[in-house]
Amino acid sequence: MTTLKTKKVDLKVERDFALLNISTLDELKIKHSANVKVKSDTGEIMCEVIATEDLIEPGFVGLKDGTLDLLKVAENKKVSVFVRRRPASIDFVKNKKQGSIWKEGEIRSIVNDICSGQYTDLEISMFTLAQYYLGLNMDEIQYLTTFMAEYGTTLNFGEPVYDKHSIGGIPGNKVSLVIVPTVAAAGLLIPKTSSRAITSPSGTADTMEVLCDVNFSADEILEIAPKTRGMLVWGGTLDLSPLDEIVIHKVEQPLGIDPHSQMLASIFSKKVSTGVDHMVLDIPTGEGTKMPTKEDAINYAHEATELGRRLGIQIEAALSYGEQPLGTAIVPALE
Amino acid sequence: MTTLKTKKVDLKVERDFALLNISTLDELKIKHSANVKVKSDTGEIMCEVIATEDLIEPGFVGLKDGTLDLLKVAENKKVSVFVRRRPASIDFVKNKKQGSIWKEGEIRSIVNDICSGQYTDLEISMFTLAQYYLGLNMDEIQYLTTFMAEYGTTLNFGEPVYDKHSIGGIPGNKVSLVIVPTVAAAGLLIPKTSSRAITSPSGTADTMEVLCDVNFSADEILEIAPKTRGMLVWGGTLDLSPLDEIVIHKVEQPLGIDPHSQMLASIFSKKVSTGVDHMVLDIPTGEGTKMPTKEDAINYAHEATELGRRLGIQIEAALSYGEQPLGTAIVPALE
Repeated sequence: MTTLKTKKVDLKVERDFALLNISTLDELKIKHSANVKVKSDTGEIMCEVIATEDLIEPGFVGLKDGTLDLLKVAENKKVSVFVRRRPASIDFVKNKKQGSIWKEGEIRSIVNDICSGQYTDLEISMFTLAQYYLGLNMDEIQYLTTFMAEYGTTLNFGEPVYDKHSIGGIPGNKVSLVIVPTVAAAGLLIPKTSSRAITSPSGTADTMEVLCDVNFSADEILEIAPKTRGMLVWGGTLDLSPLDEIVIHKVEQPLGIDPHSQMLASIFSKKVSTGVDHMVLDIPTGEGTKMPTKEDAINYAHEATELGRRLGIQIEAALSYGEQPLGTAIVPALE
Repeated sequence: MTTLKTKKVDLKVERDFALLNISTLDELKIKHSANVKVKSDTGEIMCEVIATEDLIEPGFVGLKDGTLDLLKVAENKKVSVFVRRRPASIDFVKNKKQGSIWKEGEIRSIVNDICSGQYTDLEISMFTLAQYYLGLNMDEIQYLTTFMAEYGTTLNFGEPVYDKHSIGGIPGNKVSLVIVPTVAAAGLLIPKTSSRAITSPSGTADTMEVLCDVNFSADEILEIAPKTRGMLVWGGTLDLSPLDEIVIHKVEQPLGIDPHSQMLASIFSKKVSTGVDHMVLDIPTGEGTKMPTKEDAINYAHEATELGRRLGIQIEAALSYGEQPLGTAIVPALE
């Protein structure tokens, strides 16, 4: 461990990095391909080391804006820099084999370690690719979902929560904008979080935003929804499932993959986080959709219903015709 | 594509990177997490983009020493910078499933694309983890071995080549130092390449180096070995199997994994590269070795012999007792 003063560095890199003078590397006895933990009074972040002879002096650690923000430190303040210790849960990821099953406690420590920034990008890819190449069984998906939700923001309304979810994939789908007020009008609570566009030209949150604001904090939702009975908000800023954001951003998007188990855990962890008890699940089916055949759709309906049952969410699944856009207009404003 | 002038940057990062002004990113229409190809008259290298506002001016691309060397350009020279195009062979890696088999041509293009620097580190990890989690069958291992050898330096002696290989893992093993001159004395050609220490305190190349130089170029080996009949050289600088170096360095060492198929392909690609025809294979067995049980060792012997047969290498495998060091001294000079 060594104590260094922070300095802001103008390098725009996705990852958090620590720019260190090579003499500091010698002191820490690490190579320039190492990872270190940078620790302030309020937090710690794993950073990839970038070494330099001239760009930073000994005694300083260069960090980007975002890292300084996360650590809640200003420039010229003291932080501690540690050699990174490999988390034990990596062994669970390594030992995953075809037919071997992750135990509940193993999944919990993997999720906690990834969410608290203990894994390198390469180790996160190993976790995601274990799912991609080997798949997970329903027990594993259930634990993964639960712990993913546990790590994020949770909304507790203290009364039954209703939800409608579509797996999406077809343009012009704005049925949530009709369902939410309808359900709310019946007096049921439906604080629906939606995504922005992923595969279609407009996500429900995008469409709704044409009519009103969709950015709310967890506290605002907890205050407003019980009164209005219905809300349609963007889930992106709520940090409902931190692991999901990490995995999507670092592995799934760059590689263009979406492991089945991770997809289910992604959707359901957010439902658990928002306290959903009853849900209607829309599965658009047919050529050009995410579920090209009826068998795909039925299998998915069974899996989702079973996962919901295990998580205490009562689900009604409906297969819908998805081979043409819904309605007569596509993209936010027109819809 | 845009033409930029090179500038040397004092950032020590393992990967090749291109430090670009954010205005250049706008011009190329890329994000700061993108990859670009930097092309000189003599070569091209894939670089990870690092963006900056102040550290590099528009019109310049900042590269580290090593990248400038590889591109064979000096500072202030023009290079072209392209948005990277995702190689088609990534789809073969993505489509690998339990029970699905890579075709000969698929493996060839994966090997060629990785060796020519077309893959990102994440994509290389996907290739390696496909092997780790799914395994390869003997056909796939054979193709992988062949193409790995094909891409590197090959030594052609125009006469039968003999070799001895030990899977290693026990300290004090210096039997090659006795075998090589013995075989050479019988008039057979044995230009043995060895590694430095991997798991034991001293690799054969380390031990030999106490007595004489072990660093030779491919041309020197082709000139000397046919005269002396035997040589014991370090294989590390010969570039016999470029893919192996990439995978070890970028994935296997950081994650601490060694997929079985990649291990076999690693060893045998180097044998194919040096034109080995006849080989004795030593498999130290017993507690504390790489083959703890007799079954492990026998399975390995069968696999290696079969792979050798397919590659035109006649192999005699011998299981040896490996539960104690060989000889009475350990580490290079003492041995």
